[in-house]
Amino acid sequence: MFKKETYMARRASLMQKMRGEKGIMLFLGNVDSPAQYRDNAYKWRQDGTWLYYFGIDEPGLAATIDLESGEQVLYGNDLDLDDIIWTGPMPTVNELAQSTGISKTAPLCALEPAVKGRQVHFLPVSRDYNAHLLARLTGLEPADVISDGKKGCAHASAKMLAATIGMRLIKSQEEIDLIEKACDLGYEMHSVARKGIKIGKAEQLIVGEMEGIVLGKGWGMSFPTILTQHGEIFHCHSHELPIEPGKLMVIDAGAELNEHYCSDFTRTYPTSGKFSPKQRDIYQTVYDCNALAFSLIKPGIAYRDIHLAVNRLIIERLQNLGLILPGNPDDMVAEGLCGLFLPHGLGHNMGIECHDMEDYGENLVGYDPDQQRSGQLGLGGLRMARRLKPGNVITDEPGIYFIPALIEQWKADGIGKNAINYPKLTEYYDFGGIRIEDDVLVTADGARLLGSRRLPASPDEVETAMASD
Amino acid sequence: MFKKETYMARRASLMQKMRGEKGIMLFLGNVDSPAQYRDNAYKWRQDGTWLYYFGIDEPGLAATIDLESGEQVLYGNDLDLDDIIWTGPMPTVNELAQSTGISKTAPLCALEPAVKGRQVHFLPVSRDYNAHLLARLTGLEPADVISDGKKGCAHASAKMLAATIGMRLIKSQEEIDLIEKACDLGYEMHSVARKGIKIGKAEQLIVGEMEGIVLGKGWGMSFPTILTQHGEIFHCHSHELPIEPGKLMVIDAGAELNEHYCSDFTRTYPTSGKFSPKQRDIYQTVYDCNALAFSLIKPGIAYRDIHLAVNRLIIERLQNLGLILPGNPDDMVAEGLCGLFLPHGLGHNMGIECHDMEDYGENLVGYDPDQQRSGQLGLGGLRMARRLKPGNVITDEPGIYFIPALIEQWKADGIGKNAINYPKLTEYYDFGGIRIEDDVLVTADGARLLGSRRLPASPDEVETAMASD
Repeated sequence: MFKKETYMARRASLMQKMRGEKGIMLFLGNVDSPAQYRDNAYKWRQDGTWLYYFGIDEPGLAATIDLESGEQVLYGNDLDLDDIIWTGPMPTVNELAQSTGISKTAPLCALEPAVKGRQVHFLPVSRDYNAHLLARLTGLEPADVISDGKKGCAHASAKMLAATIGMRLIKSQEEIDLIEKACDLGYEMHSVARKGIKIGKAEQLIVGEMEGIVLGKGWGMSFPTILTQHGEIFHCHSHELPIEPGKLMVIDAGAELNEHYCSDFTRTYPTSGKFSPKQRDIYQTVYDCNALAFSLIKPGIAYRDIHLAVNRLIIERLQNLGLILPGNPDDMVAEGLCGLFLPHGLGHNMGIECHDMEDYGENLVGYDPDQQRSGQLGLGGLRMARRLKPGNVITDEPGIYFIPALIEQWKADGIGKNAINYPKLTEYYDFGGIRIEDDVLVTADGARLLGSRRLPASPDEVETAMASD
Repeated sequence: MFKKETYMARRASLMQKMRGEKGIMLFLGNVDSPAQYRDNAYKWRQDGTWLYYFGIDEPGLAATIDLESGEQVLYGNDLDLDDIIWTGPMPTVNELAQSTGISKTAPLCALEPAVKGRQVHFLPVSRDYNAHLLARLTGLEPADVISDGKKGCAHASAKMLAATIGMRLIKSQEEIDLIEKACDLGYEMHSVARKGIKIGKAEQLIVGEMEGIVLGKGWGMSFPTILTQHGEIFHCHSHELPIEPGKLMVIDAGAELNEHYCSDFTRTYPTSGKFSPKQRDIYQTVYDCNALAFSLIKPGIAYRDIHLAVNRLIIERLQNLGLILPGNPDDMVAEGLCGLFLPHGLGHNMGIECHDMEDYGENLVGYDPDQQRSGQLGLGGLRMARRLKPGNVITDEPGIYFIPALIEQWKADGIGKNAINYPKLTEYYDFGGIRIEDDVLVTADGARLLGSRRLPASPDEVETAMASD
């Protein structure tokens, strides 16, 4: 948690941007979330909005900011002796309020009377418990207040969303410092994972080694670990396979600090320690795409345009390999043909959440008001399209995948039938996928990789590192 | 997942016990549970009831059993191509149904029409999402169908509860085999933790080492790790402290297999490797209590009586140490004075959940119909009081704690003022706590410790192990 002045300034800035509005802003912290039975909770994780505006990393709290009187109130219940046997002495609600610069507190039962009859401004909530609580407090339906996952919700305050997104997109120095620390922890855990790659070993053993590092020094993984010899499956959370020779192992994993700032890196390794010529061709292309994107990142350029530049490079390189037939690459990019090989976006915002603010609605968070989100596979998956600004923290994560089911579907539908060499693509049906991902800060005049050290990335760096592991 | 005949037999047995009832039994599997934004889910964990009756370890499923026609239906939605890019090829709902011996399937949208207008029998649900879904399907309020955590819920089917509890209390051989495997993984992780104890090291680093072992070979921890030099705080999930010399470190942690059966062990270590004489006195008593309990476990004896026998031994030993004044120990046990030192119960049922079936309601699960739960601190916390039967799997976890806030409260309230040596107790305000926990199978004629090897437990065993770590 930062010092209280940070949170006071953020709330003051929000209030300033909400000037002229009536009613109250309502914020709900998380409660514990059951894994098995109710009292066996998953590891405690506070809500991202709450962490940004209040920082208090404890369950069962709520807050209101009165837009008319300016009054800020923290709601929560102090523990009694029965609780203290189980939890030990805990700070009082008053002490918690002081830690975030709020002077007025009230028990949770005072929340409903304080909210009823007022105009309530809120941001989309992420968990079912809070959706039902917020619905009860506002008289709306739970479906009206919970994010549907990515698309936000219709009844959240547009003004509060715009103000919050504007602030959170630009990371402060103290936020950048913590993201760098998360990147360093990510470096450490990815290094352990790379060293753990041995033919015959169960994938899950590497997952354990890697996650153990993060749990020892941070909150845990910033998202469920992707560690798979089936890199063509984007969210492959199964780690059942033994490591086989000659495969490509995609490891996409991030660290979340105890302070909850995140990192998110992907590396792809040849399980045998050396790329085959076929693997190296594709790997080099993905590496060059990652480098191209990084070279283009600077204030003013739309990340959407960088995504498209990467698409163009992929098309050209796949033409060289004969996987795409000769023709104008720009036309092919415009047609969206690259989506067959890169069906996801080039990157996303990152901060106190791995996909920062995703529940506010991707289109609000990642698109400037004059940008229209594409419906194409690939470009349409782009989470961050905005014109870049200093202080943005984004991922640079191009990839190339050979997804047999998708290729067969496009072929059957006749998509790109004059451009894509479908017969030759069958030679890649057991290839898997490759992705290389770094975390990048947009600076005043360009970009900077986050983290003190960069994980081996070029084909030679990867092979050298694996040889010395 | 066991072979389908296991689940078919369990459901047939349940149907047999429900004979004469009208309507349908409704079962809801879990959906993913968000950690940060909705699409960033906690590690997937299926519902315990669902795992017991169906075994299918995938999200978004429901099932009905018609008590009149005998028809069983599995409800779920097959993936489309968009999903498959993210998840890879997945088994169809039909294939999942076959894996559990069900022949009829339907899409999720068919669930509501199938349920509406029927009498619905259900067990308490644990998560908010399912509570709201079940409330919608039954016309009840969410609060009527969700377990309140420990106490169950008023509107669940009493007959279905009694039948299910009766079955789940007696573990089959294939369940015992998996619990033993979870115990062996627990042994391995506790051994790593013990070896990790070094003066000056951050507690959290040991947590990471330990949890990494489990994540590498199993689902994860069977409950949030307790690893603390403040053993007097029962659910201390903070691991911020560096390890100090001369302290007692309580490690209460369990492993959950990929198949979800659990273990749960506690050991208490002197951080310096040797117990001080004061620590050894208390440790020896807790060790003797653990051994006494184990020696008494056999079919027919109420675990409540074993808890009371342990209480008596604690009173006697604390009398020897002068912490309790001379007097009749039986009277003191009856008065509940031991609750000051052991404010929790001796143990709980364990199986596919660490506190097996806790959400069905502790009193239903852990108490015979003729047993009344005590209101006393300590005895009242006992989760398993029943007369034991072969096939029960229970924990044996006595402890002695010195909780300054609780002692001060009792002293102020005048509780045990003629029995408890309050002045002398102040010498123990920085002592912490000690707990020793094993997992025990009730056999035909006694008891057996679960797991191939027992973690060092006696004071000498602990010191020897730490000396050679």
